[in-house]
Amino acid sequence: MISDRLLSYYLLYRQGRIMFNDIQLVPGFSFFGKNIGIKDDTLDFGGILSDCPCNAAAVFTQNTMPGAPVEVGKEHLRDGSLQAIIVNSKNANVATELQGIKDSKLICQLVAESCEIEPQAVLPSSTGVIGRYLPMEVVSKGCQGLKKDFGKTAQHAENFARSIMTTDSRAKWVSARVGDATLFAVAKGSGMIEPNMATMLSYFVTDAAIDSAQLQKMLLRIVNKSFNRISIDTDTSTSDTVVLMANGLAGTVDLPAFEIALQDMAIYLSKEIARDGEGASKLIELTVSGAQTQEQALLTAKSIINSPLVKTAIYGADPNWGRFVMAIGKVFHYKVSIRDLKILFGNDEKSLLIDADAIDRNEVKLDEISELLKKEEVFIKVVLGNGAFSETVWGCDLTEGYIAENAYYTT
Amino acid sequence: MISDRLLSYYLLYRQGRIMFNDIQLVPGFSFFGKNIGIKDDTLDFGGILSDCPCNAAAVFTQNTMPGAPVEVGKEHLRDGSLQAIIVNSKNANVATELQGIKDSKLICQLVAESCEIEPQAVLPSSTGVIGRYLPMEVVSKGCQGLKKDFGKTAQHAENFARSIMTTDSRAKWVSARVGDATLFAVAKGSGMIEPNMATMLSYFVTDAAIDSAQLQKMLLRIVNKSFNRISIDTDTSTSDTVVLMANGLAGTVDLPAFEIALQDMAIYLSKEIARDGEGASKLIELTVSGAQTQEQALLTAKSIINSPLVKTAIYGADPNWGRFVMAIGKVFHYKVSIRDLKILFGNDEKSLLIDADAIDRNEVKLDEISELLKKEEVFIKVVLGNGAFSETVWGCDLTEGYIAENAYYTT
Repeated sequence: MISDRLLSYYLLYRQGRIMFNDIQLVPGFSFFGKNIGIKDDTLDFGGILSDCPCNAAAVFTQNTMPGAPVEVGKEHLRDGSLQAIIVNSKNANVATELQGIKDSKLICQLVAESCEIEPQAVLPSSTGVIGRYLPMEVVSKGCQGLKKDFGKTAQHAENFARSIMTTDSRAKWVSARVGDATLFAVAKGSGMIEPNMATMLSYFVTDAAIDSAQLQKMLLRIVNKSFNRISIDTDTSTSDTVVLMANGLAGTVDLPAFEIALQDMAIYLSKEIARDGEGASKLIELTVSGAQTQEQALLTAKSIINSPLVKTAIYGADPNWGRFVMAIGKVFHYKVSIRDLKILFGNDEKSLLIDADAIDRNEVKLDEISELLKKEEVFIKVVLGNGAFSETVWGCDLTEGYIAENAYYTT
Repeated sequence: MISDRLLSYYLLYRQGRIMFNDIQLVPGFSFFGKNIGIKDDTLDFGGILSDCPCNAAAVFTQNTMPGAPVEVGKEHLRDGSLQAIIVNSKNANVATELQGIKDSKLICQLVAESCEIEPQAVLPSSTGVIGRYLPMEVVSKGCQGLKKDFGKTAQHAENFARSIMTTDSRAKWVSARVGDATLFAVAKGSGMIEPNMATMLSYFVTDAAIDSAQLQKMLLRIVNKSFNRISIDTDTSTSDTVVLMANGLAGTVDLPAFEIALQDMAIYLSKEIARDGEGASKLIELTVSGAQTQEQALLTAKSIINSPLVKTAIYGADPNWGRFVMAIGKVFHYKVSIRDLKILFGNDEKSLLIDADAIDRNEVKLDEISELLKKEEVFIKVVLGNGAFSETVWGCDLTEGYIAENAYYTT
């Protein structure tokens, strides 16, 4: 039993179209990542620069208290065009009021001056602690002579991916080829993750020639199948940003093929984020099907993947399947009968099914469920009834590590 | 600065009306709690018996997968009358299909036979692991000669309160006097707690004479100000039940006074449950005011009290107030301006205010906030704007203890 998703990955992989955990350089784009001392001596400042202006699209957090860079970024993207992205970690520049906006605009200006581009062509991002002013002396100094920091090697791209990390335990990137075009994307994120209509930080660059309206439509669709389907802790960041820049150097491409590649890259990065959830030891892939509406499928999937009691049971490989029943039942406005319910652990011929028959015969094999829950990737399928709607979401287990990372974050 | 709630507590306390953590015997009611060996040798079986039929009211879980005892209890309460309550811990009798209903009805019948009352006058409850059949041989044996187990001493009442505990670290009870009538209530609960329209297990008995329709109306109102305003882990139990039995022996009482006492008892028990949250080290009392609607106040309060990042910060006394901003901002469909927002830590003259002015002046006193977060009772007030609506909710911090208790619950 191989899922459609795995099959499509396999096919793309065989065709050499998606290159997981691989850096493919995209003509016309350069990168940097360096330490400027915002908090400590790890990489904390990075950027992407295109040789020419790009068509661009982005989605941002729906949190009603967005950070200053989100507000500035929205403004700079209004004409559908970007040439550079500048990111700092260790400080989110959120809840910083007018000073935060001023600081974020100043960074764009300093980058633009150094790189000889327009300030409005720079999209800023910041990630880290909320409620503190950026140390602008340090940042301004970091912007001096910035152009020479940019380079077109894999090491430059890797440094960029590392410079945007906060509590991430590893950098996350993925590449793809579609026709003559190359795609490369990086992402960061491991806590404050329940994106809603948007996501954490992720940047996609390509040399395909696609106009910004098309880019925006595609980006919205793929974000709703990827970053908006992961959850680590139900908390929605104030800084979530996904950007896609296309410089056009490779000419036009087959758009459906491009969108499939884009979606698979986004799902790969989403899974990498869920797998790297703060303190997480396991990636959980959950599919809810048989729902009466798309909403029921998504609400039920989110209810399960976000349940602390489900997450701790999976952490302990405790075959406490009753907690799934509880989590399904707390989507109050859709009635589900336990007679129609099926819960399937695993994704191959060793999968274990719990249904009314198994319960009636008292034949639920707890030890074998526990074995399946011990794996690093836990697959669960829930069938609610005979409805036509389904959703797949990704999450992680809840461990002592999450508490340890978050109880003393700022201190 | 003393809150209205504290003031009303104080007044009731001075009048001797609410007796926190105190057992007052109610004429006509007897109790028992004993071990029958459902899982180990701790108390696991308990009951309440009235000398005469009582007017009664109850609210039950809104989980769409309720346990068998909830279904049987609803049926038995249909005539507004009860004479006994029988509870087992260590096994929830949930997701047990037809066998579960049969088992639950058999227990009522055995209790009724032993106590010479009607089976329909018995309300059953079960709490513990989901998805396993009750060990009916053990339970049937435990019902033999049950009448002699009941008694009218404080020790009997305490044994009952202990017999319904699962992961609770302590038993929870409260008493009150209203006119000539006495009230006594017990509760259990420390995990799978986000009651919705209902709650965990809690039983109230009184000798006041009040008809069942009145009892039901009062119970719904007070539950919505108490048990429905606490949250430990956002998970809604399949067994939540609150019952109120009135045997009438003390005659009529002043109904508004009775309802105030009832509400304060319920709030006290709710706070005891939140304080005893699995692994919790602190009780959090949060008031959100200045909201445009009642819904906004409640959604915002729940968003904050349920945020894992807020809960872990409070655990670590990390003055990471930005996480409150994030949690307020993830109530997407109400716009709040950070210019109107006020966050107040503490509840006396040492309270610390964070608002736009303090942010602009960079004058947020992190060390003093940290000191306030180190207390065992953490008080937080959030003012969203100049709206007229407010809500108070209770919760607890999130610690390694929660993970440890839940990762290996059944095994």
